[in-house]
Amino acid sequence: MSKIPVNTEFARLKALVEEHLLDYLPDIDPKSNTLYEAMKYSLTAGGKRLRPVLLLAACEFCGQKADFALPFACAIEYIQTYSLIHDDLPAMDDDDFRRGIPTNHKVFGEGIAVLAGDGLLSAAYETMTKDMLLYLDNDELLKRKVRAIFEISKGTGCRGMVAGQIADLEAEGNPCSREMLDFIHLNKTAAFIISSVMSGAYLGGADAVKLDDLRSYGEALGFAFQVCDDILDVIGDAKELGKSTGADAEQNKSTYPSIYGLEASFRKAEELIAKARGAVEKYYDEAEVFSYVLDLVENSIKQ
Amino acid sequence: MSKIPVNTEFARLKALVEEHLLDYLPDIDPKSNTLYEAMKYSLTAGGKRLRPVLLLAACEFCGQKADFALPFACAIEYIQTYSLIHDDLPAMDDDDFRRGIPTNHKVFGEGIAVLAGDGLLSAAYETMTKDMLLYLDNDELLKRKVRAIFEISKGTGCRGMVAGQIADLEAEGNPCSREMLDFIHLNKTAAFIISSVMSGAYLGGADAVKLDDLRSYGEALGFAFQVCDDILDVIGDAKELGKSTGADAEQNKSTYPSIYGLEASFRKAEELIAKARGAVEKYYDEAEVFSYVLDLVENSIKQ
Repeated sequence: MSKIPVNTEFARLKALVEEHLLDYLPDIDPKSNTLYEAMKYSLTAGGKRLRPVLLLAACEFCGQKADFALPFACAIEYIQTYSLIHDDLPAMDDDDFRRGIPTNHKVFGEGIAVLAGDGLLSAAYETMTKDMLLYLDNDELLKRKVRAIFEISKGTGCRGMVAGQIADLEAEGNPCSREMLDFIHLNKTAAFIISSVMSGAYLGGADAVKLDDLRSYGEALGFAFQVCDDILDVIGDAKELGKSTGADAEQNKSTYPSIYGLEASFRKAEELIAKARGAVEKYYDEAEVFSYVLDLVENSIKQ
Repeated sequence: MSKIPVNTEFARLKALVEEHLLDYLPDIDPKSNTLYEAMKYSLTAGGKRLRPVLLLAACEFCGQKADFALPFACAIEYIQTYSLIHDDLPAMDDDDFRRGIPTNHKVFGEGIAVLAGDGLLSAAYETMTKDMLLYLDNDELLKRKVRAIFEISKGTGCRGMVAGQIADLEAEGNPCSREMLDFIHLNKTAAFIISSVMSGAYLGGADAVKLDDLRSYGEALGFAFQVCDDILDVIGDAKELGKSTGADAEQNKSTYPSIYGLEASFRKAEELIAKARGAVEKYYDEAEVFSYVLDLVENSIKQ
């Protein structure tokens, strides 16, 4: 796999998130410093920051500066990080390492890892709702924030990410039906990616056309992302998308290649990436970050 | 300890919560039915519903019908329930029973219990933000909801309940300072009770005087609640407040009686209850539910 050049717009938005990621955490009392340390440990452990960058890019694409959406972008990275901490727990995927360093519970212990996850999920909503308080006198902007926070809660909750995680956990060790595999993919991964894009679109004040196009983009990208991750589990360079190599195969989970075969999986990934490109291609350079994210996903499975 | 007569207003609000508690959950796909079953199991396992009743009572006290606040009342019961599920996990308090039935992880396994808690916490915010979408055209009522959701996120997050839980977990097995014990009490228990009262007050459209009085009431009640719970751990009828008998003593946790002695603890509880009564007594019958909650707390430690 060859590297593709870093996109400067993507890099700018990623740097913005990383610069402010800890700033937007609620002020934590020094008496619960361990909570802060455990949250910070996983927040600063790297990662592509794909979801917050997509949120910021969608906001700017729709005409509002990224600053306006920054608390929400940081909040969804808190949600992403909480989900990884809980997912790594012994009772879940039981992973000792993530992104090359020990997982949260290996460093802080299981009890604190559970609470660090709970703290991050709570912090996400505290950060977003605190930000909303600043817009009590601007009805138009406040409404955008309300729509965005709902979109995030829907994509990451019990008819989104959490639903996918439980179905995934239950499917472990048993081959699952194609229908169930689609359900897992859609919920575990795609729902959160869709809501990252859509919440950014709402924050940016998207019109109906852009909302439609960005939804199509988010859906195809979200699904493509998981199919490629499954392919990477087989072809063995999973680290590019931030997961541990072969994790799902090791855990006897059904994956796209295990059910459809590797060749069909590559075709499916190509189709989905093409579909996502189709949704935003008419915007040319304005959709630069969206195209680059597709390049990243596409490139990750190039052999 | 003698029973006190059930207050009909408290009973009415509690029935309202219990009648709608499952209705306000997001629609969960049958493919993740286990998630729904695990969430429902703990939601319907009984309990005083103290926090949602306080929220509804505060809303009505400030002049708005309880229906308006009902999605928020159910949401805080989701938060309360998630916190109990996670608190009972082997890596935390390791409890096999709660309210006389097996804890969530004993029935569904640890992985699903973690996710059921995550699902409930996410559901709380999805329910509140979905409800806010109904008020996009009513600025005044929308602003009340924004203030209420922030209050809830603050009281239950990483400078509230989660901070208290982590300090409590860390203090296990070591005697803690008076300052730290106060920190744990304030955050682990009082913060959520305060935010239940205050979010109800905001939803009800409270004026500045009522906001002040209800904050004083909530603070004294929240602290009294934890001191009485600590006393019950010693005098051994803890079930009245919904905790397992002697749990903290068994786990070698510092409690109010273990640090200040039992007699001083009784005096402290009386002082706090009197302070809470003082905050609302001028409202006579209008504050009926608030007085009754104090009766309940006071009666729980009568021998």
